[in-house]
Amino acid sequence: MTVLFSDTEVTAALDAATTVDAMRAALLAAYDGRLVAPPRASASLGGGRMVLTAGHLTGEWYGYRSYDTFGHPESQQLVVLHDGRSGAVRAVAVGEELGSRRTGGLGGVAVDALARPDATTLGVIGSGRQAWTQVWAAAAVRPLREVTVYSRSAARREAFAARVDAELGVVARAVDDPAAAVTGRDVVVLATTSPTPVLDAAHLSPGTHVNAVGFKQRDRAEFGPDLLAAADVLATDSPAQACAYAPPMLAAEPPYADRLRDLGAVLAGAEVGRTDPEQISVFCSVGLAGTEVFLLDRLVRVGAAAV
Amino acid sequence: MTVLFSDTEVTAALDAATTVDAMRAALLAAYDGRLVAPPRASASLGGGRMVLTAGHLTGEWYGYRSYDTFGHPESQQLVVLHDGRSGAVRAVAVGEELGSRRTGGLGGVAVDALARPDATTLGVIGSGRQAWTQVWAAAAVRPLREVTVYSRSAARREAFAARVDAELGVVARAVDDPAAAVTGRDVVVLATTSPTPVLDAAHLSPGTHVNAVGFKQRDRAEFGPDLLAAADVLATDSPAQACAYAPPMLAAEPPYADRLRDLGAVLAGAEVGRTDPEQISVFCSVGLAGTEVFLLDRLVRVGAAAV
Repeated sequence: MTVLFSDTEVTAALDAATTVDAMRAALLAAYDGRLVAPPRASASLGGGRMVLTAGHLTGEWYGYRSYDTFGHPESQQLVVLHDGRSGAVRAVAVGEELGSRRTGGLGGVAVDALARPDATTLGVIGSGRQAWTQVWAAAAVRPLREVTVYSRSAARREAFAARVDAELGVVARAVDDPAAAVTGRDVVVLATTSPTPVLDAAHLSPGTHVNAVGFKQRDRAEFGPDLLAAADVLATDSPAQACAYAPPMLAAEPPYADRLRDLGAVLAGAEVGRTDPEQISVFCSVGLAGTEVFLLDRLVRVGAAAV
Repeated sequence: MTVLFSDTEVTAALDAATTVDAMRAALLAAYDGRLVAPPRASASLGGGRMVLTAGHLTGEWYGYRSYDTFGHPESQQLVVLHDGRSGAVRAVAVGEELGSRRTGGLGGVAVDALARPDATTLGVIGSGRQAWTQVWAAAAVRPLREVTVYSRSAARREAFAARVDAELGVVARAVDDPAAAVTGRDVVVLATTSPTPVLDAAHLSPGTHVNAVGFKQRDRAEFGPDLLAAADVLATDSPAQACAYAPPMLAAEPPYADRLRDLGAVLAGAEVGRTDPEQISVFCSVGLAGTEVFLLDRLVRVGAAAV
């Protein structure tokens, strides 16, 4: 029997700690070669494309995420989980929650691995779905005591701060300029749709960890080369995907490419992460392929355990 | 709200007349360019591939079928229907029924368009799922009075004959050699997994229509060049897909390629079909891409109308 999950059901069943734990396992599986995640495949449909990113955890499951590029107002993604032995479809998730929680979870792993152990303050630029799941996951790995948020819409940043307070139990303040959101913060999240920099790296305090979730390509990025120049530690969830961006991802080009580390390798102890509390660390999130299916597998297991 | 259909629900909701009618509409939409169906896309997953065939009915819907090539025992296909305006996922079908009914429906359209109007007897070689849906659909377009069936397993051909009798209300007989199944029949269905010919064209009577559903490539086909040489009318549901086969499809190579007609064009009156009751007509089924989504859309409409 195939189980169908809507956004409502994903929201109810998948907490931040479980999500971060699953994404840590996924990064380690990708690093040691058990998680196979090939380049995306797509089919052109006239006016838009149907895109598939697939994954296979050897011996366990295989599946994919599908989405389209038509730009329709209520466009929904699909994540499909096949049993790795029988081939049967165990679960299908429809909507946006699984995907954004997946990205949040990867960000949570990055904060856990790279931010200072004593980090308690977080500043976020952006107030959308991706900004939310980043803060949601960070709160699961560090005992946050204050969140500051900036976005262009005063109403949206106020609503975001109120949601952080209500759902995460963390004091939150909306501020009216980006510098005020990030100055003196232990963790900074960039999660905007801006194609131009929203952050001046000079505003970051020593020791800050940054998760960059939005655009990060040459000539189309929510941060500039100043952030990468300031970074003592630079990591991504998929060096292979980072290198495949077109136009190229800033962090995957010289002079940064040689320093770009695999977060999975850091988790495995094969590469070093932060070695000094004064270092600035930057995580460039690309969305490791196969992780949506990984998270759906975890969701099915959590659900089965709860019955 | 996304509706999930299992094989049981597809079987209950989708009758042969509805299916044939939907496939006729799909062939016409493909012929006049409203149904966009690009080549398949796939992602390699180590040990198998995840494959996607997509379709888009301009202004109405878009979606895809996915399947894999791992060869697992209970491997299931998925068909996904997006609303063409909102992008929301309206329905998902999991299993094999929608796909095999789709192929049966295309075969039913071919029988309706190309077999003699007075056809009443059908011979089938093969007793699997594809053989069944071909006969099921043919019975919706011609008043069959007798079906003969051959397959290598006596138990399976007997069971098939009993099912035709019970579910379609048509007298059916299992026979113990392929020639006996096809001799003197008005309609013949080849639906085997044989890579070598199971039919001798010399056994066909003048005026017979043949649906060929199994392998049909050079050096890997359930029929030989003798069938194509005997065919006065030769058609397929997708000339483009027929030409894209590798190794090449027999009917898409010289000297047959020039005579291979688009069934959609025949339906539209742009190409001629049968012009004489003594002609032999052959339909080479390739499974026009996008038709699974077309059928899922019809299933959703039928379901909505029934409420």
